[in-house]
Amino acid sequence: MYYIGIDLGGTNIAAGITDEKGRIIRKDSIPTRKEREYPEVIKDMAAIALKVAQDAGVPLSQVKSIGIGAPGTPDTKNGRIIYANNLKFRNAPVRDEMHKYTDLPIYIDNDANCAALAESVAGAAKGAANSITITLGTGLGGGIVINRRIYSGFNDAGGELGHMVIVVDGVQCTCGRKGCWEAYASATGLIAMAVKAMKENPDSLMNDLTGGGNPDKMDAKIPFDAARQGDATGVRVVGEYIKYLGEGLINIINIFQPDVLVIGGGICKEGEFLLKPLKERIASGVYSRPEVSQTAIRTAEMGNDAGIIGAAMLGLQEA
Amino acid sequence: MYYIGIDLGGTNIAAGITDEKGRIIRKDSIPTRKEREYPEVIKDMAAIALKVAQDAGVPLSQVKSIGIGAPGTPDTKNGRIIYANNLKFRNAPVRDEMHKYTDLPIYIDNDANCAALAESVAGAAKGAANSITITLGTGLGGGIVINRRIYSGFNDAGGELGHMVIVVDGVQCTCGRKGCWEAYASATGLIAMAVKAMKENPDSLMNDLTGGGNPDKMDAKIPFDAARQGDATGVRVVGEYIKYLGEGLINIINIFQPDVLVIGGGICKEGEFLLKPLKERIASGVYSRPEVSQTAIRTAEMGNDAGIIGAAMLGLQEA
Repeated sequence: MYYIGIDLGGTNIAAGITDEKGRIIRKDSIPTRKEREYPEVIKDMAAIALKVAQDAGVPLSQVKSIGIGAPGTPDTKNGRIIYANNLKFRNAPVRDEMHKYTDLPIYIDNDANCAALAESVAGAAKGAANSITITLGTGLGGGIVINRRIYSGFNDAGGELGHMVIVVDGVQCTCGRKGCWEAYASATGLIAMAVKAMKENPDSLMNDLTGGGNPDKMDAKIPFDAARQGDATGVRVVGEYIKYLGEGLINIINIFQPDVLVIGGGICKEGEFLLKPLKERIASGVYSRPEVSQTAIRTAEMGNDAGIIGAAMLGLQEA
Repeated sequence: MYYIGIDLGGTNIAAGITDEKGRIIRKDSIPTRKEREYPEVIKDMAAIALKVAQDAGVPLSQVKSIGIGAPGTPDTKNGRIIYANNLKFRNAPVRDEMHKYTDLPIYIDNDANCAALAESVAGAAKGAANSITITLGTGLGGGIVINRRIYSGFNDAGGELGHMVIVVDGVQCTCGRKGCWEAYASATGLIAMAVKAMKENPDSLMNDLTGGGNPDKMDAKIPFDAARQGDATGVRVVGEYIKYLGEGLINIINIFQPDVLVIGGGICKEGEFLLKPLKERIASGVYSRPEVSQTAIRTAEMGNDAGIIGAAMLGLQEA
């Protein structure tokens, strides 16, 4: 059997058809044109879903389901999107709308959960019953897989690992609380730290790397580049970032002790320069006794297709 | 069918026989005499387990299993206790030892997990698929129940909710890290805060309530007593305590969104004076959107029998 997955984003609607191992047979994408009302967007979602099956030469009788990953808050039971960041989806009856165009079962979840499911079925946590996937981007997304199924609580709103406060009264977070892990360990958090340090240290290489200390040119790669070249301020910023990232990861391990903890997002491209000190910090901080097995820390493997694959695999976990 | 539960503590071995709803039919206890080697302690555990069944008039053919709750790190799969606080149990083959005296199936877990299972089966979270139970005592114990089963990770070492850092570089915790939730929100954390505030404020009523500012006479009740009487320092200490307790609870909700979050331990005796401001703080801090259902906050109901009942119910969850 085959599974269709749709990754609904603010820019594009990406769809793909996969086999039961999450391998993509065929994929395609179209612009979301997010200013549109949801019935129009969903009509396009149905069309591209059916198109990828057709293009792959897979008859719909061989397709098990269509899964949809969307940013925001889903209502998985009723197949609705309660709220979606940047999209005109408010209490949108996605399953009902999709059923105007297809009789296939429709499953919905949020994008961070889909990414975690993709890693669990086909990626870095393949074979593990329990895994947590953290994505370090503009925000800090988290997805929890327990017994090979997404866990997101009784109201589908769980797994908000980025909104775990690690510094009471700390840095203001976009969510309203202060000191959320996301405010420190996301790329946005790193950039804020780096800009501050650069301003305070006019001799830091980061000033040159941003075209003369232009904060708008700072990105998450520059502090790492500076640190690799031995810039003291860069080294300090990277060290601080790893500290905050690590403290949150240790918390996650102390709570979940998953078989595998997967870290994704652009920052992971820094490779061992990030991972080696991070793993050392984690090993020295976890609460579990040394004689028990320890959680494996791995980087994400699914890349840009994680959303499609995870959405497709929503049908597998419901089987 | 009936279930036997044993609550192995540093002071007493308590055992009880329950029905499938976790109602105790008969219970008994004997001193642990913790200085003894584990085979002797386990011999007594087997004897008292069989005795409560006999005293209750229940034939062993009607008993499903014996469950054991112990402080520390269990190996649930192999029926061992890897480490137990204050007891001479190191890699102790508890199941094998118990099988010298009985053929009944033997299940093992730690005491915080058993307390959570007891609340889930028969207490404040009865009927809920997912619940978290926090016990505020000398330490801060946590137990996670997902789909009516204890969740403690792939190595049985999860659920260490007290060792979630909420203040990076904060107060030193006994575990080696700094800023763990336990260091602020346990009774020990409250007492430390209260002693410090009392010393800094010689006019605080807490000085009178401790026989002239004697830190050894401070307990977790005194700051609440002072606050109820309008003592400004007491009000401030209780407010700070609720803030730290609340921040951790909000983290737990953002991560798990359980149907029910159960709070136990002596501090809960403060009732609405604690719970009302705590619930207000939680409501204002959780990340979930207002239109979705919210986690219910309840106080624990199982009291001193939680350990026996939870241990007994280990057999029910394995059924």
